[in-house]
Amino acid sequence: MGTTPRPLVGVKPSNSLLLLAFLLTFVLVGSRGESNAMDNVATERMAEESHRQDSANLLIFIMLLTLTILTIWLFKHRRFRFLHETGLAMIYGLLVGVILRFGVHVPQSMSDLVLSCAVNASPATLLVNVSGRFYEYTLKGEVSRSKGHQVQDDEMLRKVTFDPEVFFNILLPPIIFHAGYSLKRRHFFRNIGSILAYAFMGTVISCFVIGLIMYGFVSFMKVVGQLAGDFYFTDCLFFGAIVSATDPVTVLAIFNELKVDVDLYALLFGESVLNDAVAIVLSSSIVAYQPAGDNSHSFEAMAMLKSFGIFLGVFSGSFALGVATGVMTALISFHMLRDFPLLETALFFLMSWSTFLLAEACGFTGVVAVLFCGITQAHYTYNNLSPESQDRTKQLFELLNFLAENFIFSYMGLTLFSFQSHVFNPMFIIGAFVAVFLGRAANIYPLSFLLNLGRKNKIRSNFQHVMMFAGLRGAMTFALSIRDTATYARQMMFSTTLLIVFFTVWICGGGTMPMLSFMSIPVGVDSDQENARRNTKHESAWPFRMWYNFDHNYLKPLLTHSGPPLTATLPACCGPLARCLTSPQAYENEGQLHDDDSDFILNDASVSSMFADVTVSTDASGSHTVNRKRSSTASTGGGPWDEGLDHELAQAENEVAIRGTRLVLPMDDPVESVGSFHHRLQYHS
Amino acid sequence: MGTTPRPLVGVKPSNSLLLLAFLLTFVLVGSRGESNAMDNVATERMAEESHRQDSANLLIFIMLLTLTILTIWLFKHRRFRFLHETGLAMIYGLLVGVILRFGVHVPQSMSDLVLSCAVNASPATLLVNVSGRFYEYTLKGEVSRSKGHQVQDDEMLRKVTFDPEVFFNILLPPIIFHAGYSLKRRHFFRNIGSILAYAFMGTVISCFVIGLIMYGFVSFMKVVGQLAGDFYFTDCLFFGAIVSATDPVTVLAIFNELKVDVDLYALLFGESVLNDAVAIVLSSSIVAYQPAGDNSHSFEAMAMLKSFGIFLGVFSGSFALGVATGVMTALISFHMLRDFPLLETALFFLMSWSTFLLAEACGFTGVVAVLFCGITQAHYTYNNLSPESQDRTKQLFELLNFLAENFIFSYMGLTLFSFQSHVFNPMFIIGAFVAVFLGRAANIYPLSFLLNLGRKNKIRSNFQHVMMFAGLRGAMTFALSIRDTATYARQMMFSTTLLIVFFTVWICGGGTMPMLSFMSIPVGVDSDQENARRNTKHESAWPFRMWYNFDHNYLKPLLTHSGPPLTATLPACCGPLARCLTSPQAYENEGQLHDDDSDFILNDASVSSMFADVTVSTDASGSHTVNRKRSSTASTGGGPWDEGLDHELAQAENEVAIRGTRLVLPMDDPVESVGSFHHRLQYHS
Repeated sequence: MGTTPRPLVGVKPSNSLLLLAFLLTFVLVGSRGESNAMDNVATERMAEESHRQDSANLLIFIMLLTLTILTIWLFKHRRFRFLHETGLAMIYGLLVGVILRFGVHVPQSMSDLVLSCAVNASPATLLVNVSGRFYEYTLKGEVSRSKGHQVQDDEMLRKVTFDPEVFFNILLPPIIFHAGYSLKRRHFFRNIGSILAYAFMGTVISCFVIGLIMYGFVSFMKVVGQLAGDFYFTDCLFFGAIVSATDPVTVLAIFNELKVDVDLYALLFGESVLNDAVAIVLSSSIVAYQPAGDNSHSFEAMAMLKSFGIFLGVFSGSFALGVATGVMTALISFHMLRDFPLLETALFFLMSWSTFLLAEACGFTGVVAVLFCGITQAHYTYNNLSPESQDRTKQLFELLNFLAENFIFSYMGLTLFSFQSHVFNPMFIIGAFVAVFLGRAANIYPLSFLLNLGRKNKIRSNFQHVMMFAGLRGAMTFALSIRDTATYARQMMFSTTLLIVFFTVWICGGGTMPMLSFMSIPVGVDSDQENARRNTKHESAWPFRMWYNFDHNYLKPLLTHSGPPLTATLPACCGPLARCLTSPQAYENEGQLHDDDSDFILNDASVSSMFADVTVSTDASGSHTVNRKRSSTASTGGGPWDEGLDHELAQAENEVAIRGTRLVLPMDDPVESVGSFHHRLQYHS
Repeated sequence: MGTTPRPLVGVKPSNSLLLLAFLLTFVLVGSRGESNAMDNVATERMAEESHRQDSANLLIFIMLLTLTILTIWLFKHRRFRFLHETGLAMIYGLLVGVILRFGVHVPQSMSDLVLSCAVNASPATLLVNVSGRFYEYTLKGEVSRSKGHQVQDDEMLRKVTFDPEVFFNILLPPIIFHAGYSLKRRHFFRNIGSILAYAFMGTVISCFVIGLIMYGFVSFMKVVGQLAGDFYFTDCLFFGAIVSATDPVTVLAIFNELKVDVDLYALLFGESVLNDAVAIVLSSSIVAYQPAGDNSHSFEAMAMLKSFGIFLGVFSGSFALGVATGVMTALISFHMLRDFPLLETALFFLMSWSTFLLAEACGFTGVVAVLFCGITQAHYTYNNLSPESQDRTKQLFELLNFLAENFIFSYMGLTLFSFQSHVFNPMFIIGAFVAVFLGRAANIYPLSFLLNLGRKNKIRSNFQHVMMFAGLRGAMTFALSIRDTATYARQMMFSTTLLIVFFTVWICGGGTMPMLSFMSIPVGVDSDQENARRNTKHESAWPFRMWYNFDHNYLKPLLTHSGPPLTATLPACCGPLARCLTSPQAYENEGQLHDDDSDFILNDASVSSMFADVTVSTDASGSHTVNRKRSSTASTGGGPWDEGLDHELAQAENEVAIRGTRLVLPMDDPVESVGSFHHRLQYHS
C-alpha cells in the first residue's frame, strides 16, 4: 500500500516557461532504452487490467441495485412499510461499503505514477509525453488529503468513488425530468403561490438561518480549538444552501402511496422539486461571488446583490431554455413523427436530455431547465404523441427514475465507508443538526403565517408540522456536497451532510406514517372527490385566468392537437395567419371534434354545474372554476399520469359534442348523472 | 496551437526508484508560493469550463441523432428507400466532422500540461501531486503521433473523439442483446448447423485469407518503399480478424423490411450475429498470443494452437456465463417479482447488463455473453414476465438498440474527419478491398458447397451470391479497429477499415434491393406459409430432438410458467423433488391449463396433421416435426416478437384443452380448418 512520492531536486526553469504558468514540462526520472513493441504490449495489458477492474466496480453497483430490487419486491409482497426503498438501498450501500473497506484487500497496482508539482492548480487535462508519444489524461478528482506526502490510496475504494459529475449529468436529469413530467399540474398550479413562496423565499431564509447558526458554531469551535482548518462565512452559507434542498423522491413515494390530502401533497412536492433548483442556483452563485477578487471570504452587500443578480439570471435563463425545448419538441411531434412510436420516443428522450446539456453548456442550470422541460412536455408534447408513445415515454422515464434514484441512495450508503477524506467533527455535526432543524422551522412557520393571510383555504397547523417534519434531505443535497470535496471545510460539510441525509431518510422518512396519524391527517383521500369538494376562490386570480385563456386559445392549438383550431380563436382579421399556422392534422383533428362549438360547450357554465351539486361552495359563474374543470375533464388537458380518468371523461365529452347542442347534459336528474360520473371518477383515480 | 514540451535537465534518480519501474516521482519545474484559496477557485473555474465543453460535445451528438431521426421520418413518410438510416446517420456524421474540422476554431486552452517522460509504458492512472494535494488522472488515450515533439492538438476534435471503451461498454451491448432477444429462434435453430459453419469456420477462413493477402501486399509495399512503419504478420492477421465481422444491423433492417426468404434471412443474420463474437475472440486471441515472449511477430504453430485454445475457452466461457445469467433471471422472475412490472423490467435490464460486465470482469467476451443471455432471456424469462413487462422490455431494448446503432454510425461518419492520426495508404486500401472481397468469397462459396452436400434444402447459387454481396462491415469492425490506434499499423488499419465500412454500408447496403431482384429472389414472402410449406428432414436430427425434449420436459417447467409441471414429466420416484422444485405459481398455472393432458395433446401427431395437408413432404410420425410445430403454436414458446400470432394460437390450444380429449381437432373437414388457421397466421405475421 501507499506509494511514497519522493520529491527530488528541483530544476531551474527557463524564462519562457515561467511565463506560461500552466505549460509545464517535466523531466523523466530514469531514462530507459527503447523497446517499442514491448511498450505496446504492456500498455495493452494495463489497459485491459484497468478495463476489467472498471467492469468489476460497475458490477458491484449493478448487484447492489439487483439486491435492492429483490428486497423491495419482498417488502411489497409482505406489505412491510416501516422502511422506504430508498432507505433500503442506503443500507445495502452501507453494507457493501463496509465489506469493501474492511473485507477486500486488492493488492496495490504498480501502475500508478506519482508526479510531484507545486502548480497553482490542477489542470483539467494532462498531456504526458511517453517516449515521444503523447497520452492524454483527464482529471478525475482529488484523491485524498495527503498528510506529510503520504498517499493512502486503496485503489479499489478510490475507483468505486464516482466522478461527481456523473450525478449531475447522468443520474439527476432523469429524476428531475420525471418529477416534472409526472407532476399533477392541476394541484400544483392551484397552490403555485404558496409553493413558490416556500421554495424561493423559504429556501433563501433557510440558507441564511443555517449559514448564520453554523457561523456561530464554527466561530465557537475556532475559539475552543476544535477546528483543524479554515472555515469561512461563505462556506457556512454554502452549507446552508446545500442542506436547504428537500428531497422530492421519498416524499413523493410515501405520500403518493398513502393518498394524503392533495393540497398538502402538492405543497410538499412542489416545494421539494423547486427548492432543488433554488439550492443549486444559490450554491453556485455563492461559489461564483466568492472568488471576485477578495480572499477575505467575508460578507459584502455588493457581492450579495451580484449574487442575487446571478441567481435571477441563471434561474430565468434555465426556465426559458427548458420551456423552449419543450415547445420545440411539441412542435416537432405536432407536425411530424406521428405513426412511428419508436422515432417519437427516441426524439422525446433526446430532446429532453439535450435540454439539460444545452443549459449546462450555456452556463445555466441543467436541472432547472429539465424540470420545466418536463412540465412543458407533459402539458403540450404529451398530447401530440401517439398512444403507444405516451405509454413508452411514461414507462421509460419511470424506469430511468427508479434506477437513478436507487443508484444514488445505494451510492450514498457506500460513500460513508468508501470515501477517504471524511472529517467527522462531533460539534459541527451537532451544530448542523440544530441549524437544519431551526432553518426548516424558520422556513415553514413564518411563511405559512404570512401565506394564510392571503389564502382562502388556510394551511392548518397540523399541515405545517407535517411539512416541518417531512423536509427530508436526499439526492440533491448529497450531489451538491460531493461535487467538491477538495478543502477541509468541504470535506467536513460532506461528511455531515451524509449523516443528515441518513438521519432524515431513515428517521423522518420512516416516521412519516406515525406522524400523519398523530397529527390526525386523513390518509386514503380520493383526490378527485377532494378536488370537487373544495372550490377555492383564490384560484380564480386574474393572472392565472388570463394565462389559462391564452394557453387554451392560442398555445394549445398552436402546439398540440387539442383545443379549438386557431381559425376559431384568432380574430377574423388574422384568418390567413391562423390558417397558415394550423397544420392539416389540426384540421383533421377539428373534424374529429364533429362540431366547432364542442370545445366551448365545456367552457360554458353548464359543465361546472355537473359538479355543482356536490361541491360545497358553488361557483357556477366563475370562469376559472369552469376552466379548471375543463382541464380535468378534457382528454387533451390530462397529464401523463391520469389519462385513464381523462379518457373516460373524453368519451363523455364526445357524447356531448355529438349531440351538437350547447346544453345537452342530463340535467333532468342531476343527482343521478353526477353520481354515475362520480362512480367513474372513483373507479379511475 | 501546439504546446511545445521542452525536456529539461534530467535528474539522477535514487536507487529505490529504479527498482520500481512504474513508481515515478517527478519534480516540479518552477516552484510557486502557496495561495490555497486562489487555487481552489482556479480549479473550480477550470473544472466548470471543462464540464461546459463536455456538455457541448455531447450535445453535438444528441443534435446529430435528432437530425437523423427527423430525416428518417421524412424518408419513411415519403417512402424513400435508396438509403438506409444507418447510411444517413453516417452522412450527417461526415458533415458535422467536416464542420468541426474546418469550420470551428476553438482557441487553444492553456490548461494543458505537457509532461515529458520516456517511461516504458503509459500507466492507466496518474497521481499528480499539486502543492501537496494529490489529483488522480486517468488515461484517455494517445493524442496524436508527435512528429518532432510537435503536438498538433485541436482540443475540440480531440474531445469529440470518444473513449473506444464507450463503444464496448455502453453502445454495443444493447445492440447485441437486442439481436439475441429479437432473434427468430425457429428459423435460426433450423439452420443452426450452416450458421455455425459460416460463423466459425467461415470467419476463421476469411481472417486467414485476408491476413495472407494483406501480408503479400504489405511485403510488396515494403519492397517498393511505400510503407512508413512496421507492419508484422500478426498485424495482418489482426486486420483479417476485424474486417471479417459482418454487421447484423443493416442486414437485419433491410431484409426484415423486404420479407425475403426466411432461410436466407436466418443464414445471413445468424452468421453476422455470431461472427461478431468470433471476430472479437479471434482478434483478442491474436493480440494475446502476440506478446508471448517473442518480439518477432512471426507465425508459430505452438502459438497458433495456444491461440485456438484461448479462443475455445473464451467462447465457451462467455457462452456459459450468458446462459447462466439468463437462467438466473428466469428463475428470479419465475419465483418472484410478478405483478410489479417496474421492478421486473428493472431487474431484467440490470441482469442483462451485468452479464456483460461480469463477462468482461472475468476476462471473457461480454458481447458473446450478452448475445446468448439475450437468446436465453427470450426463450425462458420472457414467458415469466407479466404482459406489461413483456411490452416494456421489448420497447426498452428496441429504443436502446435504435439509439446506440444510430449513434455508432453517425460517430463513424464524424471520425473520418475528427480522428487526427489517419494513415491513408492507397496501396494498402486497394489491397484491403481486394482481400476483403476474396476473403468473403473464400468463406461463402466453398462452405456452401460443403454444406449443400449435407443439406436437404440446398443453399442455391443465387442465395450464395446475395450472401457474398450482403456481407456488410459495420459497427463491430469499427469498434474493434478504433480500440487501439497507437501504432502506425493500427492507424492505417483504422483508416482503411473506415473506408471499407463506408463503402459496404452505402454501396452494398443500398444495392441489396436491386441485387435481390437481379438474382430473382422473391421478396414479400410470408414467413409462416414458407415455414409450413417446407418440411426438412435434417431438422429432426437426434441431438436437436433430444435437446428439445429435455428443454420442453424439464427446463421449461423448471424455469418458466409454461410446459407441463415437473410432477408430470419426472419419473414417479422423483415425485418429492419435483414437488419441491415446482413453485405454487406453477401449480396455479397448471390449474389454468384445465387438463394435465392438454400439453401432451400438442405433442401428439394430431397437431402436426393440422399442417400436414399443406406441407409438401408430410412427416406425421416424426416427433421433431411435431415439436417444431408445437413451438410455433404454443403461446409459451413464442419469442418476444411474435406473440400476436402466438396469442391467437394459444386460444385455439385452449379450445383444444377445454374439450379434454386427446384427439379433438376438427378432422372431419381438415382443409377448411387448416384454411381458417392459415388465415389467422397470415393476418398476424
